Amino acid sequence: MPEVSIDLNMVRVTNEGFVKKAEACAPKLHEIVVKPASIVDIVKTQNVYPEVVLRDSIEHLSGYHLSKGDKLCLDFGDHQVGYVTLKLASVGSPQDAPAFFRLKFGEIAKEMTEDSKDYDGWISRGWIQEEFLHVDVLPAELKLPRRYAFRYMEIEAIDTSLKWQLVVEDVTCVSVSSVSMDQVKPFESDDEMIRALDRVSLRTLMNCMQSVFEDGPKRDRRLWLGDLRLQALANYATFRNFDLVKRCLYLFAAQTREDGLVSACLFTEPQFIVDDTFLLDYSMFFGAALLDYYKASGDMKTLQDLSECAYRQMELAKAQFDEKDLLQSGEGFWAFIDWTEGLDKQAAMQGVYIYCAKKVLEIAQILGNKEKEAELSSEAAAKTEAARKYLLDPASGLFVSGEEKQINYASQVWMVLAGVVNPAEGGRILEKVAALKPEKGMVSPYMNHHYVEALLLCGKKEAAMDYMKYYWGGMIRHGADTFWELYNPENPAESPYGSSIVNSYCHAWSCTPTYLLREYFSEK
Amino acid sequence: MPEVSIDLNMVRVTNEGFVKKAEACAPKLHEIVVKPASIVDIVKTQNVYPEVVLRDSIEHLSGYHLSKGDKLCLDFGDHQVGYVTLKLASVGSPQDAPAFFRLKFGEIAKEMTEDSKDYDGWISRGWIQEEFLHVDVLPAELKLPRRYAFRYMEIEAIDTSLKWQLVVEDVTCVSVSSVSMDQVKPFESDDEMIRALDRVSLRTLMNCMQSVFEDGPKRDRRLWLGDLRLQALANYATFRNFDLVKRCLYLFAAQTREDGLVSACLFTEPQFIVDDTFLLDYSMFFGAALLDYYKASGDMKTLQDLSECAYRQMELAKAQFDEKDLLQSGEGFWAFIDWTEGLDKQAAMQGVYIYCAKKVLEIAQILGNKEKEAELSSEAAAKTEAARKYLLDPASGLFVSGEEKQINYASQVWMVLAGVVNPAEGGRILEKVAALKPEKGMVSPYMNHHYVEALLLCGKKEAAMDYMKYYWGGMIRHGADTFWELYNPENPAESPYGSSIVNSYCHAWSCTPTYLLREYFSEK
Repeated sequence: MPEVSIDLNMVRVTNEGFVKKAEACAPKLHEIVVKPASIVDIVKTQNVYPEVVLRDSIEHLSGYHLSKGDKLCLDFGDHQVGYVTLKLASVGSPQDAPAFFRLKFGEIAKEMTEDSKDYDGWISRGWIQEEFLHVDVLPAELKLPRRYAFRYMEIEAIDTSLKWQLVVEDVTCVSVSSVSMDQVKPFESDDEMIRALDRVSLRTLMNCMQSVFEDGPKRDRRLWLGDLRLQALANYATFRNFDLVKRCLYLFAAQTREDGLVSACLFTEPQFIVDDTFLLDYSMFFGAALLDYYKASGDMKTLQDLSECAYRQMELAKAQFDEKDLLQSGEGFWAFIDWTEGLDKQAAMQGVYIYCAKKVLEIAQILGNKEKEAELSSEAAAKTEAARKYLLDPASGLFVSGEEKQINYASQVWMVLAGVVNPAEGGRILEKVAALKPEKGMVSPYMNHHYVEALLLCGKKEAAMDYMKYYWGGMIRHGADTFWELYNPENPAESPYGSSIVNSYCHAWSCTPTYLLREYFSEK
Repeated sequence: MPEVSIDLNMVRVTNEGFVKKAEACAPKLHEIVVKPASIVDIVKTQNVYPEVVLRDSIEHLSGYHLSKGDKLCLDFGDHQVGYVTLKLASVGSPQDAPAFFRLKFGEIAKEMTEDSKDYDGWISRGWIQEEFLHVDVLPAELKLPRRYAFRYMEIEAIDTSLKWQLVVEDVTCVSVSSVSMDQVKPFESDDEMIRALDRVSLRTLMNCMQSVFEDGPKRDRRLWLGDLRLQALANYATFRNFDLVKRCLYLFAAQTREDGLVSACLFTEPQFIVDDTFLLDYSMFFGAALLDYYKASGDMKTLQDLSECAYRQMELAKAQFDEKDLLQSGEGFWAFIDWTEGLDKQAAMQGVYIYCAKKVLEIAQILGNKEKEAELSSEAAAKTEAARKYLLDPASGLFVSGEEKQINYASQVWMVLAGVVNPAEGGRILEKVAALKPEKGMVSPYMNHHYVEALLLCGKKEAAMDYMKYYWGGMIRHGADTFWELYNPENPAESPYGSSIVNSYCHAWSCTPTYLLREYFSEK
């Protein structure tokens, strides 16, 4: 089901001062030269995930003479985001035709077994990391102009000629990030799974930290507010690159819709422009992300600069409530919450509003804005009362959402995070919903993160750790080097886009185990 | 049927002095900036050749907003060889996915209707002029690194996204050649078909004259000796770029097989190397081409330098004769003559030997090499006698070839050109063979050129002109801007490669009408 917003009549208002402050924080990217580690075969199995079998030592690379149809798959040993250069040559008679070959990049082995020809999803097939290239004269050093996110790279000689074969003499990736792994000490634990949860989180976060916090370096390669909030939390606990968060917050505030609404995402190339996509939860999270940033960095100037924008998001959201103080669902793709198909978002969004009102209230407190503080305090109270009165179903003891009174995870989680229920009550609610296994589950690691945070808020540390090992650990058991955009343990091939070939397998909103571990499970 | 030669054990002998002389003659290419003339639709018809229908003025180009699957075909008005630059942009919401599009270049409209997916021929599909490109950030100026030979360029938006469309703001081709059309006066005639024969020949020749005489700028883009000989003749009558011929002759002599045999073709990129393909007729033509060059240029130094190489080809060919002085057919792809399937080449090659012996004898005469003159004179006489004795069939009055005594055009033509029969006798033979319509006809313009030359040698000017109008004129009537590698009036879709999509439609060996007109039909 396509979920896109288009508003070609949108009027954008730009704050040039904020643009300049954002530009001043643009990072210089670290570069690391990475070579492939081995030649592998990726073998389909009866399971969803194929097997990766060592074929040969990388030292033997140039010994492969590729004729029409021959393929070589290189394993770079870990997830890379970078620029690839190939040294190609020919053997046999002189090269009497252009070399014509296909390069395919995959973040996980499964992508390498999927055929782009079969793709019939609704987002652009342009995201499939595959190139068809002609090289007229060999030998040649081929510096690919595009950035790829990958662990595996396959080269297929589509055609050479009867007289010569293609040789891959060398392949190099210049991997890039605005941070470097040696800036962080790994999380200490005797449990290898816990160490892996931290390690894979860090790799995910690092590879998404480019000139902005990208959602995914394969796709969409851009800054989304919902993703930013979680990335920033993980970053404060690890790389502590405050400037990159500052840059992103200023970018969101630097250009808004005419009425001041913050966009859900933005672009920095070819020039800075915010998208015409608006997700009400994301807009509200601007304030939450700003407060998190201030608390981590102590940067009062930025808090002062951007507080008005945070206040404005809450004002705009306030207009969505009815006379009973219940949030009215918008039309189309109006809020995110999760990718779960058919998810009713009303109750969860009520929770998000209360959550954000309390965060922005804290900003007002810090800045001494008594009026705003009082207003948001009263808002949070009124919406909390309405939530308890109209949405908390006395029979089930669970929050219901929308006209059909849907019971789903998201409603419970956000009501807990918003403090609509106290930890003890929240704990019971979370137990109940888990026991109920509602049809509308959780698909994105983004939603699953909030579930774990809700568990932790209710003091359920063991359940939270078990769930992290089950959920993020599930990806690790399937061979993840970085955490995925989407993971449904009960349907590992699920995709919101009509085909998993365009899924992102290094996705920022999935990097939070390193934050959760360091925030809630540290010895000290 | 694949026709390739591979000799990986071939030992190459290089004459560095000759290489230097060839390099000193490397041309500086003329560049002309060409814009598309119109937007067209190419419509399949019941005939082999599709119809080209004007769709829109080129001024409206940027008004087309291409969504997934949309195509635009641009007509550059004439055959171009050059480097293409596109200015691309997006319209709609911000570009939220890479632009993914296909570019297809066609020398003739028919190529544009052929699908590369269907290609199943034996030469490399790498020759199909088609690119699949991703552009991450629009607007962009996309300078394609490869050279294309084309009149039509199609762009197909394989995917954009639901939020934006692709716009082609401008397309430019920098067309290249070592000569310029303003160096030649068109052939004067009241007959538009005759003027067209000249005009299309000149365009063909110009577009093949690059850093060497290429056979075809689409394919194979390299120097073949058989093609060079005819291109050089047309060049002497028109552009008169003697240095380019000199360069090519030195290149062939500069590297040979260990025994001195001249290769059929050679490469100049990434560095000069001769191919391991040997065609006995092409090797022998080295001497004929050298004599032609001397006669046109008066360059005695080059004649002296390269005469030994010319002599050597005849010595090596001599070894192929049996005790009856009949040439023995080689194995595999041993001689060219024509692309006609199943053609027996023995008798034609006997003719080529005699033809070349007489040419090289003339070189020896000019250089005062009495011994070589006598030797070649005796060779020509002996082989002529054998041809008449064993190959001229008394019953039919036609030359027969090979064990199965095949009667074909090629044998008659080369015996006439070699002077094995006198013009009167030759005239009767050519009439007979035409009346007989032998199964083994003529496919390549290269062979057809020799047929017309044979007619002219026998004084049949009118028949020659009629045939040129029928054969080359046939291509013009099918819309040719340049003459094709291959044209069989009775089977216009014929290809020696398994599919016409890889045929070359600007092929040097087809450019000879301008030579024939100026040599045999000039007023003065």
